[in-house]
Amino acid sequence: MDRRSFIKKAGLAGAAGVGAATLAAPAIAQGNQTWRMVTTWPKNFPGLGVGAQRLADRITAASGGRLTIQVYSAGELVPPLQSLDAVIDGSAEMSHGAAYYWQNKSPALAFFTGVPYGMTSRELTAWVRYMGGQELWDEIYDQFGLQGFLSGDTGTQAGGWFREELTGVDSVKGLRFRTPGLGGRVWEKLGATVTNMAAGEIFQALQSGTLDAAEFVGPYNDLALGFYQVAKNYYFPSFVEPGLATELVVDKAKYQELPEDLQAIIRDVSQAEYDQVASDFYANDPRALQTLINDHGVTVRQFPDEIMEAGGKAAAEILGELRDSDDALVKKTTESFIEALNVLRTRSEGTDGAFIQAREKFFKI
Amino acid sequence: MDRRSFIKKAGLAGAAGVGAATLAAPAIAQGNQTWRMVTTWPKNFPGLGVGAQRLADRITAASGGRLTIQVYSAGELVPPLQSLDAVIDGSAEMSHGAAYYWQNKSPALAFFTGVPYGMTSRELTAWVRYMGGQELWDEIYDQFGLQGFLSGDTGTQAGGWFREELTGVDSVKGLRFRTPGLGGRVWEKLGATVTNMAAGEIFQALQSGTLDAAEFVGPYNDLALGFYQVAKNYYFPSFVEPGLATELVVDKAKYQELPEDLQAIIRDVSQAEYDQVASDFYANDPRALQTLINDHGVTVRQFPDEIMEAGGKAAAEILGELRDSDDALVKKTTESFIEALNVLRTRSEGTDGAFIQAREKFFKI
Repeated sequence: MDRRSFIKKAGLAGAAGVGAATLAAPAIAQGNQTWRMVTTWPKNFPGLGVGAQRLADRITAASGGRLTIQVYSAGELVPPLQSLDAVIDGSAEMSHGAAYYWQNKSPALAFFTGVPYGMTSRELTAWVRYMGGQELWDEIYDQFGLQGFLSGDTGTQAGGWFREELTGVDSVKGLRFRTPGLGGRVWEKLGATVTNMAAGEIFQALQSGTLDAAEFVGPYNDLALGFYQVAKNYYFPSFVEPGLATELVVDKAKYQELPEDLQAIIRDVSQAEYDQVASDFYANDPRALQTLINDHGVTVRQFPDEIMEAGGKAAAEILGELRDSDDALVKKTTESFIEALNVLRTRSEGTDGAFIQAREKFFKI
Repeated sequence: MDRRSFIKKAGLAGAAGVGAATLAAPAIAQGNQTWRMVTTWPKNFPGLGVGAQRLADRITAASGGRLTIQVYSAGELVPPLQSLDAVIDGSAEMSHGAAYYWQNKSPALAFFTGVPYGMTSRELTAWVRYMGGQELWDEIYDQFGLQGFLSGDTGTQAGGWFREELTGVDSVKGLRFRTPGLGGRVWEKLGATVTNMAAGEIFQALQSGTLDAAEFVGPYNDLALGFYQVAKNYYFPSFVEPGLATELVVDKAKYQELPEDLQAIIRDVSQAEYDQVASDFYANDPRALQTLINDHGVTVRQFPDEIMEAGGKAAAEILGELRDSDDALVKKTTESFIEALNVLRTRSEGTDGAFIQAREKFFKI
């Protein structure tokens, strides 16, 4: 995902945002409350912005209107990358975004979104719900008076759009590649010249040759941005983004003041939305990919083994640095994540992955 | 899963069941209602019985007690395989089980649990929620005045316990194999002598040599049944059970009479539980498998390609028969399922499966 495009959109919507903030102070009437949810996503952004709005509507519906959630998309109330701070300073009760945007608060937050060669969505929920992940996340957010819930997942993303075919690690050297975050650090270790730029700027940069490659999310989001017009090689899978989980973060003190049924509704709807958003991407990514292939002449390629192997070494170095952190909570979270991953991967590889391979080889209908 | 063991347990609990039914007629007091949920699962059955109870408790909590769900495990109120009929005839408001138990009502119901070489859990929710699956399911259950919701998933199961190593299709001929349902029909086509028997009878049958092989669910459930003591070869993956989804079925007329917020809560909690149960199995299957390998000397094996290939042909024949059904709704459901599967598998194979393979090869930490 892309921080700078959100900041840009935020700037455009800044003036309107102030007005909205003034109008929407929490109202308590006949026991009914209105809470403000700020999001890091543009309004109607496929999968994610749509998911934030739907989550809000579902809480409103399940509470019978006792808790109405008013959504402010990226920039409407605060700039998107100030969403978490808006909850901390009390100008909103909820934030919908991705935990890795707040790595400046704790690098361990990356694990609750996704890390290079890390967990798939099903592995992530297993860790968070049954192997100590939520408890660690709670410990991190407790420092800021916050409570986090998983609220969606893109699943494994696409590896990116490349103007030229990749032949091996040599072809990565000096490649001007738009890819942010820890994934960008992996590609830097492979020799790419990594840059970040706003979503709206990628197309022109690819067209003009300022960029050789760019990754954004996956077919569902990428189709709309038109990258296929200027880069025909679409690489899979994104070994640096095996999943991208979204979060709902709530002001913990205000959450705990709610009646227990409303607390349960926020928790349950967030979990339902995790499944809903994951299903949305799972259904709509392959449909968008078919359009890209059949209507727009895109060539789908798999990264050469040499690149994925070098990527694996680079990812292990980056996770190793987090495990060696002086911050005890970062160290503990990384250790828990790695330990859980090494258990869960035995199932993903030996059962789920083995089934997918068998079906690919042996089942046609 | 196992029908006959449930029936057997039902028989044992029959007398108590009648008493419970008499005591628990729905109560409406100060707007509060109590609904009866019958289940096909034994009480505290890992993952599934536990999930039914937790789903009930979550509805009770999120509704603030306005809708209290009283759970009757297999046989407590009615025999487990009469759970759906209990909702149809009004002796319960809800049933928690698996749709494929009711294939005598419509063979199409198998698709909402899982079929040989069919959908993984993530594919299933994509089809149900975004590709027309729920609408078809609604059309089937409408005939009986019912409303179904997905409520959990075991994920891809284990292939089964075999006394002897399998060398190819020849080694399947005449093999006395306990494996029920459409999966059993696949193994029959491969030459096995397929039988069904209650869970509690499997161990002795394997020990005495009455059975050569048996499959039940996966490590989380199988560990408790002790099969490892008499059959050391544990085969993966179950190409005949790539997923087993559970359902919550509700009396549709009573559901529609509920206030909209309570309808939303039932829907939302069921979806949250889909994620919760899937996470439970995903976390606990590999931990149980480690115990089986490290403490009990079990050998994990993958089915020979020849068997999985023959299984693929057999599965395609069985799904082809359903597609050719004279029942228009069975035909339409099968066509929708196959069309969706052929879209979704491009993502599972090209993105998720490709990532799992890359991680297996190239990432160690």
